[in-house]
Amino acid sequence: MKIALLGHGNVGSGVSNIIDKGNTQFTKQLEIKKILVKDSSEATDERMVFNIDDALDDDIDIVVECLGGLEFPFLCISKALNMKKHVVTSNKKVMATYYDEIVELAKKNGVNVIFEASVGGGIPVMSNIRHTRRVDEINDFIGIFNGTTNFILDKMFKEGESFDSVLVEAQKLGYAESDPSDDIDGHDVKYKCCLTGNMVWDTSLNLDDITTFGVRTVNQRDIYFGKRHQSTLKLVGRGIKKEGHVQVFVLPEYITNNDTLAHVHSNLNCVEFKSENLGVASYIGQGAGKFPTAHAVVQDIVSLLNNEDLEINKDNDVKINNEEYMSKFYVRTKNLEYFKEYIHKEIDSDVIITEPMDLFKLKDLIEKTDDKNMFVAGVSL
Amino acid sequence: MKIALLGHGNVGSGVSNIIDKGNTQFTKQLEIKKILVKDSSEATDERMVFNIDDALDDDIDIVVECLGGLEFPFLCISKALNMKKHVVTSNKKVMATYYDEIVELAKKNGVNVIFEASVGGGIPVMSNIRHTRRVDEINDFIGIFNGTTNFILDKMFKEGESFDSVLVEAQKLGYAESDPSDDIDGHDVKYKCCLTGNMVWDTSLNLDDITTFGVRTVNQRDIYFGKRHQSTLKLVGRGIKKEGHVQVFVLPEYITNNDTLAHVHSNLNCVEFKSENLGVASYIGQGAGKFPTAHAVVQDIVSLLNNEDLEINKDNDVKINNEEYMSKFYVRTKNLEYFKEYIHKEIDSDVIITEPMDLFKLKDLIEKTDDKNMFVAGVSL
Repeated sequence: MKIALLGHGNVGSGVSNIIDKGNTQFTKQLEIKKILVKDSSEATDERMVFNIDDALDDDIDIVVECLGGLEFPFLCISKALNMKKHVVTSNKKVMATYYDEIVELAKKNGVNVIFEASVGGGIPVMSNIRHTRRVDEINDFIGIFNGTTNFILDKMFKEGESFDSVLVEAQKLGYAESDPSDDIDGHDVKYKCCLTGNMVWDTSLNLDDITTFGVRTVNQRDIYFGKRHQSTLKLVGRGIKKEGHVQVFVLPEYITNNDTLAHVHSNLNCVEFKSENLGVASYIGQGAGKFPTAHAVVQDIVSLLNNEDLEINKDNDVKINNEEYMSKFYVRTKNLEYFKEYIHKEIDSDVIITEPMDLFKLKDLIEKTDDKNMFVAGVSL
Repeated sequence: MKIALLGHGNVGSGVSNIIDKGNTQFTKQLEIKKILVKDSSEATDERMVFNIDDALDDDIDIVVECLGGLEFPFLCISKALNMKKHVVTSNKKVMATYYDEIVELAKKNGVNVIFEASVGGGIPVMSNIRHTRRVDEINDFIGIFNGTTNFILDKMFKEGESFDSVLVEAQKLGYAESDPSDDIDGHDVKYKCCLTGNMVWDTSLNLDDITTFGVRTVNQRDIYFGKRHQSTLKLVGRGIKKEGHVQVFVLPEYITNNDTLAHVHSNLNCVEFKSENLGVASYIGQGAGKFPTAHAVVQDIVSLLNNEDLEINKDNDVKINNEEYMSKFYVRTKNLEYFKEYIHKEIDSDVIITEPMDLFKLKDLIEKTDDKNMFVAGVSL
């Protein structure tokens, strides 16, 4: 199989490393013919080209997109599909944003688009969804989909450091971007939940319907509250199947220490699926990183090499309705007066546990308080 | 695909239930034609027969063995393979004991034998080994392979109960057999480690070389020692790749609470693989139970239906050498005098931590002490 590799950063260079080595009977059958980089200043290899049209010559079977970003990768993926080349991508943002367009373009051109590396990095999330669904219906999923925030929360929990100082450390270690908004505001998890839900329920979820809360304002008092209640604060993404609709949202939650998710350390990810016969199946591993993510990309290429059935079905009309999701919430704000009718328990002068309420009500009240430093999290106490 | 199902106990009846329902596009293509049960007293279905030769008629494509036991299942599997029928089995004891014979018989007859359900119940251990190895070499594995002992140790840890009373409870819940020796003496884990190692390293390990310790004599003091040292006592099976040989053994170990394995609750199993690019990948799920195990059996049948490459390679000459495995050990015995040259730390009048020693030395000393109630466990303190 002849491959054009778009991008040669962290993940892209890992992909070329694994394929060029050719350590297994499968990777031996792969060949990277072209590598798209920005310009000649990045060229370290005679396969490197600087223009997408130079990368997509007739000889190429598979286009592997590891560019990062949104519009340019979408353009490249569309071009490749229209030239009837299979596409493998690690780009959750592109896939979640343009799911319908990309999947339909692949179908129209009789080729496949696959994106194992886009969710859970090195954890085989997508292939285990496909595998499980051969026998079982998956109803619900829950996961720690973002290694950066898990690293931050875990370090805050274990070492008592402040959010800001751990964020700086995560940036130094290369876990967090210089602009960490996508991670700490929950958007990265939102993209991954969208793609996970699409695969689990054979549908195309509306990304904008995924209610999303982040951890940008979390502090040591919030972390400590969990400790005192045998729980650990985690940023989780959830999908819950209901009669006639689903609930999909991203929310910091206090997870009881009896739960596998509470013990997902450092920058690891964990994705759990609940299905009819299997019960709960949990997968824990590296959610990002050069070689784990590159491994997942190469797995997708091998799946294409093996001619597996990779067609995506998105025909199920599944609507997200988060209005029904009820939980108690931990709320820390200097403007508690807006919550005074909804107090289940007072914790401190600026911290309460609410009566059970739905996510929309919570969002309403948050807007009213107009407190940029407030912090909220789901709690099952 | 036409199936003969041998055995209609817990797992077998789960298999027929899933296939008869035919809820997915794959299970719809399967049909159970014959079900072997002991005699007419167990017959509840017109497909039931009482003799293996009546089950294996020419029409059958796949024989599914869920009998339990050793010699009779081996006879049935051999017969089926010689009639050129694919075999799916959940029977770790038969597979681990007769690995060479069974795999060679399958090869000779041009059919497959697969056994996903035999290791880790509902966790897709075997298929994830196959999947990972398409791109990566797996070096080491470690796992909690036995749900019964995990249930016992977890309950002793959380509720302070005695081994004997929790064992009785496990028996009442159907987690433990009336003769629990295979579970509590570590043999069940030994079979599973043998099969896992065979698949990971493409070999046929000598079952008798797997050094095995159990938890039959564990008491609350042993459990509490872990608690005091931020560790949790677990019965684990390990495979470690070394230059020119491997180490494979079954041993109770104090696992630090920073480790995923320490938090595998109740009767769950967890299997972890360490490979070159992925790092550590962990799979947690139901290790046994009617429907999780039946799910794994049906997955194997679907793999046959899909004509996947399921051939087993056992050509690597891999020898187990446990003599080199060094660890400190927790030792509780009334006859500590035999350990007096090897004390790293005295814990109590009858409990010590040893200097690092190898597993064979440990076994030697255990035999010398001649104490049936002693307890030993690996410890990394």
